[in-house]
Amino acid sequence: MLNDALTWRYATKKMDPTKSVPEEKVAQIVEAIQMAPTSSGTQPFELFVVKNPEIRAKLREAAWDQAQLTEGSHVLVFAAWDNYTPERIDAVLAQAEAERGTNPGLQAYYERLKSMYLPRPAEVNHDHAARQAYIALGFALAAAAELKVDSTPMEGFDAAEVDAILGLPEKGLHAVLILPLGYRDETGGDWLLPMKKVRKPLDELVHEIA
Amino acid sequence: MLNDALTWRYATKKMDPTKSVPEEKVAQIVEAIQMAPTSSGTQPFELFVVKNPEIRAKLREAAWDQAQLTEGSHVLVFAAWDNYTPERIDAVLAQAEAERGTNPGLQAYYERLKSMYLPRPAEVNHDHAARQAYIALGFALAAAAELKVDSTPMEGFDAAEVDAILGLPEKGLHAVLILPLGYRDETGGDWLLPMKKVRKPLDELVHEIA
Repeated sequence: MLNDALTWRYATKKMDPTKSVPEEKVAQIVEAIQMAPTSSGTQPFELFVVKNPEIRAKLREAAWDQAQLTEGSHVLVFAAWDNYTPERIDAVLAQAEAERGTNPGLQAYYERLKSMYLPRPAEVNHDHAARQAYIALGFALAAAAELKVDSTPMEGFDAAEVDAILGLPEKGLHAVLILPLGYRDETGGDWLLPMKKVRKPLDELVHEIA
Repeated sequence: MLNDALTWRYATKKMDPTKSVPEEKVAQIVEAIQMAPTSSGTQPFELFVVKNPEIRAKLREAAWDQAQLTEGSHVLVFAAWDNYTPERIDAVLAQAEAERGTNPGLQAYYERLKSMYLPRPAEVNHDHAARQAYIALGFALAAAAELKVDSTPMEGFDAAEVDAILGLPEKGLHAVLILPLGYRDETGGDWLLPMKKVRKPLDELVHEIA
């Protein structure tokens, strides 16, 4: 039952550095990210799976010294496209036609998309791409929770430093989300673990229009 | 296995208007949205669960006549805060303290958050709030798929019209995502159903730094 897993998960503050997430579980989380739907199927981000301890130590410095980056075993960095380009959109169409066959309707669809996206400022397009990465983050969090893998979604980091560490600008990418993976410290080191999960009650969050 | 469900799901183009999603399944999808993590726990959006056929017909008009809005049985509208305000952030802190006890550290945290957020332009804050709704969309899509409920995530609609239909501006909200729920038409009416699911191969989407 997915909701049990979603209730079990929390933004783990202290991970147990002696435990490592098995590679097959990391692969399942990555597959969930791959499966995430995105606007017009563009998948406008790339994912960096960082296991290397030195790189994770640098990422920790760029993320206000948050310890999960080195006390977990893997760090996922979601890097969104800095802009939509003709080449990027053409590649999406080319893959779709390669897998589903030539399709004039699809060609027209992506031509319209280019005429809409390409004149926009890069920031507008990057923001739109970044939002798609957040859907994939949701899938990653759900997949990790189902596998009883702990994770800590992070927006709070020096994105320019993370970009530099991973060489993202050269790839036309910009870091938007970081997700360390690991296992919660159950020996009392995590102040948040014993705390009640706080969520708005349904009558504040939800309106039914019956 | 969640990934099987995530592979099963697709952006359903034609729903069967004779089938209705049971209320207990809708409630489970809504609970997944409630459980979604958000930046600093603000949950900066509200969810509208629209079952009313007349309102769904109006939403369909505002969403380029996409038929899922009336051929499904429920429509979820994610409406993000138009801005961060002192009252909204104070309410988050008040609930946390009510459920976890008085906490000077937490008070200081949210004071810092206000000093960071409140001077920013409303658009920057709305955009940040909107991104949080995308995480919750990810949870909703995963929960629906696990329950074998079909859904179609939509960004393409006239947001100002949707706002007007649901009275969102008066609530300080702005529509960012729509998710109709229902059941796929399995009798041949959905052109996308027989198509192969297209996703970028892992070697294009993912970089391992071992």
